[in-house]
Amino acid sequence: MPGCRIELDRTMEHDNAEPEPRIVDDLSAFKLAFRRLAAGVSVVTALTPDGRPVGFTATSLASLAAVPPLATFNMARSASTWPAIEQTDHVIIHILGARNRAVGAQLAGDHDHRFDGDHWAPGPLGLPLIREVPAWMLGRIVGRYPVYDNAVIVVQIEDGGLGEPDEAILYHERVFLRPGDPA
Amino acid sequence: MPGCRIELDRTMEHDNAEPEPRIVDDLSAFKLAFRRLAAGVSVVTALTPDGRPVGFTATSLASLAAVPPLATFNMARSASTWPAIEQTDHVIIHILGARNRAVGAQLAGDHDHRFDGDHWAPGPLGLPLIREVPAWMLGRIVGRYPVYDNAVIVVQIEDGGLGEPDEAILYHERVFLRPGDPA
Repeated sequence: MPGCRIELDRTMEHDNAEPEPRIVDDLSAFKLAFRRLAAGVSVVTALTPDGRPVGFTATSLASLAAVPPLATFNMARSASTWPAIEQTDHVIIHILGARNRAVGAQLAGDHDHRFDGDHWAPGPLGLPLIREVPAWMLGRIVGRYPVYDNAVIVVQIEDGGLGEPDEAILYHERVFLRPGDPA
Repeated sequence: MPGCRIELDRTMEHDNAEPEPRIVDDLSAFKLAFRRLAAGVSVVTALTPDGRPVGFTATSLASLAAVPPLATFNMARSASTWPAIEQTDHVIIHILGARNRAVGAQLAGDHDHRFDGDHWAPGPLGLPLIREVPAWMLGRIVGRYPVYDNAVIVVQIEDGGLGEPDEAILYHERVFLRPGDPA
């Protein structure tokens, strides 16, 4: 195959004095590979135990099954939202459209200001519901699988709504895009 | 919020005689919500214990972490590829580009004919390596989390390569698309 080989540093395989696999050091190659994958954009919201809204923009949302309706998303356990996700039973997953671009950026920004504004209101179970999204789903957390400093979260969808249709929104090569022509 | 409420059938909440939550019956609402999420397209390949190539097109591939490099994908345990994924240690994950549209369709089609043709060759560890993809990664399976009849698979990336760059490919509203204009 033409092109460049991703050179992952596999020192660990040859040096048992090193306690951690050194494969982890070559971030750029892994990131470059994943940057070639386009991703849909969603926002996950929840409440802290004391009732404050939290949330984040996710590019990892995926369907797991339709029967029963299950979905997954991934997150770092160092994320500001993790303590809430660790302790709550429910989240709202919002599938963003192109009209929600600003919300996608805001919920990926400074976590102290993600809920500044009128882009949300309390929704089912009092959870933050982002306005004007093409679709949202209330998910009960049925699995939290820690992997190193991260976690895979599995939710079972219990409720939801469809808003006005919109063009989809993608995150690709670090910008938000609309879908284009047939491949 | 304007638009239609997803009417999930929650008979179970009101009828304890029914052993299974009836929420699972309303497939169309869940599918309609997820159809509004654009997804990148990847192909996962593996070998059966007796060395036959298997694989499938996935729209659930997501990065989990960069340090160490981890990724996830979801699958049904009823899938033809599941017995191999259940038993093998390694998979190759291919991030498709627009030029790989036909491969994406073939690997989502009849599982008896997914490797008919010259679109692949044996790669690292003898696993099927799809030709001409923008990026591929050899992943060691570090987690298989069963959820009902499905599984979330976590892989740690151990090797990989970048091919010639290409436009990304998306799956959205049941068709393959290229990325378009900024959102």
